Amino acid sequence: MLTKAPHLFDDATRVTAGDSRWRGQTSDDYWAFVGPFGGATAATILRALIDHPQRNGDPLALTVNFCAPIAQGAFDLDVRLVKANRSTQHWSVELSQDGAEVATFATAIFAERRASWSHQQAPFPKAKPFEQILPYPKVAASWVKQYDFRFIDGDPDFRSGKAYPASAFSKLWIGDRVPRKIDMLSLMAMSDAFFARIFHAKRELVPFGTVSLTTYFHADAADLEAENTTRVLGVADAKIFHKSYGDQNGELWAPGGRLLATTTQIAYFKA
Amino acid sequence: MLTKAPHLFDDATRVTAGDSRWRGQTSDDYWAFVGPFGGATAATILRALIDHPQRNGDPLALTVNFCAPIAQGAFDLDVRLVKANRSTQHWSVELSQDGAEVATFATAIFAERRASWSHQQAPFPKAKPFEQILPYPKVAASWVKQYDFRFIDGDPDFRSGKAYPASAFSKLWIGDRVPRKIDMLSLMAMSDAFFARIFHAKRELVPFGTVSLTTYFHADAADLEAENTTRVLGVADAKIFHKSYGDQNGELWAPGGRLLATTTQIAYFKA
Repeated sequence: MLTKAPHLFDDATRVTAGDSRWRGQTSDDYWAFVGPFGGATAATILRALIDHPQRNGDPLALTVNFCAPIAQGAFDLDVRLVKANRSTQHWSVELSQDGAEVATFATAIFAERRASWSHQQAPFPKAKPFEQILPYPKVAASWVKQYDFRFIDGDPDFRSGKAYPASAFSKLWIGDRVPRKIDMLSLMAMSDAFFARIFHAKRELVPFGTVSLTTYFHADAADLEAENTTRVLGVADAKIFHKSYGDQNGELWAPGGRLLATTTQIAYFKA
Repeated sequence: MLTKAPHLFDDATRVTAGDSRWRGQTSDDYWAFVGPFGGATAATILRALIDHPQRNGDPLALTVNFCAPIAQGAFDLDVRLVKANRSTQHWSVELSQDGAEVATFATAIFAERRASWSHQQAPFPKAKPFEQILPYPKVAASWVKQYDFRFIDGDPDFRSGKAYPASAFSKLWIGDRVPRKIDMLSLMAMSDAFFARIFHAKRELVPFGTVSLTTYFHADAADLEAENTTRVLGVADAKIFHKSYGDQNGELWAPGGRLLATTTQIAYFKA
């Protein structure tokens, strides 16, 4: 069932190694309305770091600041190891195109995670099994077609008679449309795959753009390998929309009940 | 009641302007066990940006990555405007001492926030008034003495017969010990002023250090000025502690019910 052959996602987030300068390119398959799907950009940045010969440990935290639109085509990734400690590394990545100003600016932390006291306080959200839910219909944006979204709560049905403002909460299964085993890269991309909270709250599409995204990984590569899953249960919510900016906070869970990642973002909207 | 004269906090987060290189110094008044209180460092970084002649708009997001210990004394802040758009700015700040490697690495986003549709979905947490709660006793770390913490929930009382692991949730009023009107700087510092979640969950002090902190501002300077308050209601919780790292997510509310900031961090612990 798991595809081991080239997957669209791996193609979309492919990088060419450099020393401090790596190369990537936008993917038409993961295109959003006015630029690449931010999750694909974030995953491409993460791939350059994971593939870097100086990399030690697993991703712990990635913050991606979206500074300017990325045009279709190739981009450069200026990768810098800012500081290395015994068990952690601090990285910086600047994405630019054709020598222009920085379009995306990311910082990442990698860590060799040692066994410790372990306690998962957050409860695994109740959810109908994936198989019992209809896939979300394919929509216009190409990146949405690459995912299999199955809504348990907060299906963005703008026609229904919901209260207004509607709840910004969503709970859904997320998998790649062509099943692909969840790894750090797809987890990173999926942490940006929730629809804009403002769409849910306002029950309409409005101009929207993520400004900054931060994702924490609560599983290391070995943990993730052991989960051996092609989908995650995602929950996302918002706390406030004010003066053109709104927040989002989310969780990505393995079907077996392990919290894999938490994520937060702040986004611009026009409404 | 509000002190307008020099406040310890302003002294602790003082910066000397440079062009791209600014100067700051650690404060014995805001010292933690093995280095400066991270919130003071974050606020000092934010002050350099707010005071920068090229700065436009108000703080929207600040991510601070703590890469290495900061020693007592002076430090340099290498401040860089990475990208400026019509209404947003992306900044990077690298803190170092005596030309050594980067000790703290921050990215910040400033924005001119325009009026928009506004909706605060998160409910204001129920809380006893500040005046009806006893201050948390002064403890050893000097930075804790600079704050007036009044716990409503999750008082870190390690002797009580609570369940184990105990809840990591806390709800408390936070003000400066010497009252000081809340501004962007103190809000930033307070977003790192929650005690380590692992202390609450394990009901003991263990070696701990914040690795990365992200705070989003949901009020601009005018909103904050209008609140005219010297304290915030803070709530903080954790979702998971695993393989030496744990998370924290928190909210800072104005007493009048406005959500001022949300914050998240990932921290190392040894247990």
